[in-house]
Amino acid sequence: IVKEVTKLLEMKAQLGKDEGKHKFVLKTPKGTRDYSPKQMAIRERVFNAIIACFKRHGAEVIDTPVFELKETLTGKYGEDSKLIYDLKDQGGELLSLRYDLTVPFARYLAMNKITNIKRYHIAKVYRRDNPAMTRGRYREFYQCDFDIAGQFDPMIPDAECLKIVHEILSDLQLGDFLIKVNDRRILDGMFAVCGVPDSKFRTICSSVDKLDKMPWEEVRSEMVGEKGLSPEAADRIGEYVQLHGGLDLVEQLLQDPKLSQNKLAKEGLGDMKLLFEYLTLFGITGKISFDLSLARGLDYYTGVIFEAVLLQQENDRVEEPVSVGSVAGGGRYDGLVGMFDPKGRKVPCVGVSIGIERIFSILEQRVEASEEKIRTTETQVLVASAQKKLLEERLKLISELWDAGIKAEVLYKKNPKLLNQLQYCEETGIPLVAIVGEQELKDGVVKLRVVATREEVNVRRESLVQEIRMRTSRP
Amino acid sequence: IVKEVTKLLEMKAQLGKDEGKHKFVLKTPKGTRDYSPKQMAIRERVFNAIIACFKRHGAEVIDTPVFELKETLTGKYGEDSKLIYDLKDQGGELLSLRYDLTVPFARYLAMNKITNIKRYHIAKVYRRDNPAMTRGRYREFYQCDFDIAGQFDPMIPDAECLKIVHEILSDLQLGDFLIKVNDRRILDGMFAVCGVPDSKFRTICSSVDKLDKMPWEEVRSEMVGEKGLSPEAADRIGEYVQLHGGLDLVEQLLQDPKLSQNKLAKEGLGDMKLLFEYLTLFGITGKISFDLSLARGLDYYTGVIFEAVLLQQENDRVEEPVSVGSVAGGGRYDGLVGMFDPKGRKVPCVGVSIGIERIFSILEQRVEASEEKIRTTETQVLVASAQKKLLEERLKLISELWDAGIKAEVLYKKNPKLLNQLQYCEETGIPLVAIVGEQELKDGVVKLRVVATREEVNVRRESLVQEIRMRTSRP
Repeated sequence: IVKEVTKLLEMKAQLGKDEGKHKFVLKTPKGTRDYSPKQMAIRERVFNAIIACFKRHGAEVIDTPVFELKETLTGKYGEDSKLIYDLKDQGGELLSLRYDLTVPFARYLAMNKITNIKRYHIAKVYRRDNPAMTRGRYREFYQCDFDIAGQFDPMIPDAECLKIVHEILSDLQLGDFLIKVNDRRILDGMFAVCGVPDSKFRTICSSVDKLDKMPWEEVRSEMVGEKGLSPEAADRIGEYVQLHGGLDLVEQLLQDPKLSQNKLAKEGLGDMKLLFEYLTLFGITGKISFDLSLARGLDYYTGVIFEAVLLQQENDRVEEPVSVGSVAGGGRYDGLVGMFDPKGRKVPCVGVSIGIERIFSILEQRVEASEEKIRTTETQVLVASAQKKLLEERLKLISELWDAGIKAEVLYKKNPKLLNQLQYCEETGIPLVAIVGEQELKDGVVKLRVVATREEVNVRRESLVQEIRMRTSRP
Repeated sequence: IVKEVTKLLEMKAQLGKDEGKHKFVLKTPKGTRDYSPKQMAIRERVFNAIIACFKRHGAEVIDTPVFELKETLTGKYGEDSKLIYDLKDQGGELLSLRYDLTVPFARYLAMNKITNIKRYHIAKVYRRDNPAMTRGRYREFYQCDFDIAGQFDPMIPDAECLKIVHEILSDLQLGDFLIKVNDRRILDGMFAVCGVPDSKFRTICSSVDKLDKMPWEEVRSEMVGEKGLSPEAADRIGEYVQLHGGLDLVEQLLQDPKLSQNKLAKEGLGDMKLLFEYLTLFGITGKISFDLSLARGLDYYTGVIFEAVLLQQENDRVEEPVSVGSVAGGGRYDGLVGMFDPKGRKVPCVGVSIGIERIFSILEQRVEASEEKIRTTETQVLVASAQKKLLEERLKLISELWDAGIKAEVLYKKNPKLLNQLQYCEETGIPLVAIVGEQELKDGVVKLRVVATREEVNVRRESLVQEIRMRTSRP
């Protein structure tokens, strides 16, 4: 028996060993994902639309490292700081992955003493948040930022940022949308007249920020219960934060007996009025809502803030509607650069960030639903042969085509079947096949086949490049 | 005295406090850098050339996260593993920043059970190396990878990789270059016939890899002293590794009495012969050197390996010549995907990585030297006014232009001086100015000024978009 047991144990050990051999989890880290070629094709379409818009508005482009000194990020994000990814201390500097592109931008301006720039930056940022990947919430995600830094006349750059959001969301055809705007000065003024102590402004602001995800009753109980605000103050806030409208609401609040007495609120409301004037000139007020419940989570905003949300159409016949929410946000942050400047010199900034992942989710789902066939390569022609032993001739021809700038492929087989070669074109959407054969070689021609129509023509070798270009140039 | 000292100490403490206020280092992490708009313009030129080449060869594109599970990277990089950046353990999975794009690619293939793909991937990778930034050595740097995965007839994909390196380096006009090729099987066969014990193959290979930076004598003493190789074996290696040539050398080694007896070496030499045949068809053997001293540091290579170096012209009149070295490298890694597959299924791969940072360094220096003026925006027209109080009219006009797809800017001032507006165009290279004034508004025209020639014409407002497009379309 002992012998048998020993044997069995040995077998078990052996098994465990074999199992262990490749026993690691084959996955990407939590909250992250790969992009397949098809997803990349969609991603590039979206990026191209966004970059075109940023360039239309005269932006330059910069790039910064994926990590910053830890202390660069410290004290910039309020309650969200706990979501920052730190790098392990392996000797040397303490580093963290960037949480957004705004703080690195401010650091860049202060470090290079730049007081005036209009730039965009498209890059990944990192947040140790609870991912909800089906709704496009990731731990690694792209931000597409456009910012205007410099001392300018009020609200002109701010209005341009809103125009940009409007252009991009219209261009991408994501359905109806709404851009909510508010101002931190109006919020702070409102808190003051409602009786919130100065020291609680930021934390009460964080609570207000949750109104898009929680009902007022829950937010109110957080304010009173967790944050120690008086019930009366909370109720007064409750009355304001349900207000939203257009220029009329701005005018109304400018007449509000309490708010109009508060210096900050008055400044904010005056600028809001100016903003609406400019947005009227841009013809986009139809999609703008002045919304007193908009707060934005981050600490660094000092003036106008805004957030764009997609509206779910009532007649939407998509079976599982994607819950999307915010797709762009931004605002004015006049103090951030000064936090980095040794002498505290301020550079006023306003900017917008397009939250691209949610837009991807929608477009991906739409492509799936439509069964639209997306090409993932741009190959114009496959160099093929019908007979055997023509690998050398195929390689010689494709080399000529590459050198002439033609996008060409060849199957990596010595003797591929013609059928397989044609099938490859069907699968990958290659429109043309250049077929070399003994007879064609003798005649100095190449047989050019149009995959879609099966039409075949003999083309003189010296005209082949020209012919391929003509047949694949876009109309 | 005590009183005085206390006072002084208090003052000192006060001083220290004030100093501390903004006392953080304003810098990017060691070995990293920002890209200014000008540097980005150069970077985009290079990327465009490289992407065009990858697309010409029919590649799809993928993307993967910047970090991987730590265990995904474990055991793939040999002695270089110590250079991997780990993330701090903040609860959850242990993560590391990617060290290259090859291991994530292999993980991607295994995870998605892909056995056949040709893809490129351009992204940043991270190495805790000793940076030498003036020579383009960074801790965060771009890799531009092109890889072909799949079971194919020998050396056809391998030859295409070399063609790609040749096309890109020719296209970028970086001066003369040389692509060294070798094969891990030839190296291993050589080690065997020289009397290196099997267990020392990889570590001796690492030593050989240093031959581009160290003289043979030093490498030899590392082999004998640190790695315990017999002096006789080292000397035999020394004879082989000084050999380099073309097809003639391949033929010669196929006749080598010792090497030709070794199965691995014979296989490698046979494939090298085939490779040279294909490279001859591509017309690029002139820049290829079969070099027995080429080893490549990474563990995962199994067959052909290669590395491209720029050659310093003798007549180079650059005052401080940039020492550049390797600008591209790659090879065959047939076992890597199998390391990730639960059943160890192999997917043969070959690929090339373009080391873009060194190329940037060279091009940046060249731009500086030539005083070429690089535009960092694409703005076609500045919307300006000569008189005061026309901000509204400027905003209305620019909004029309943006909506028509024209790249346009406006100064963010209520009443900018015309001179300042013209100066802005000169500085940023904007070619046209659209000037609105009282009279023009009455007449329904806009004054269009060509910045370079100072020519001015009145254009009817409804023809303005057309006129701007015509005047700024590239020839």
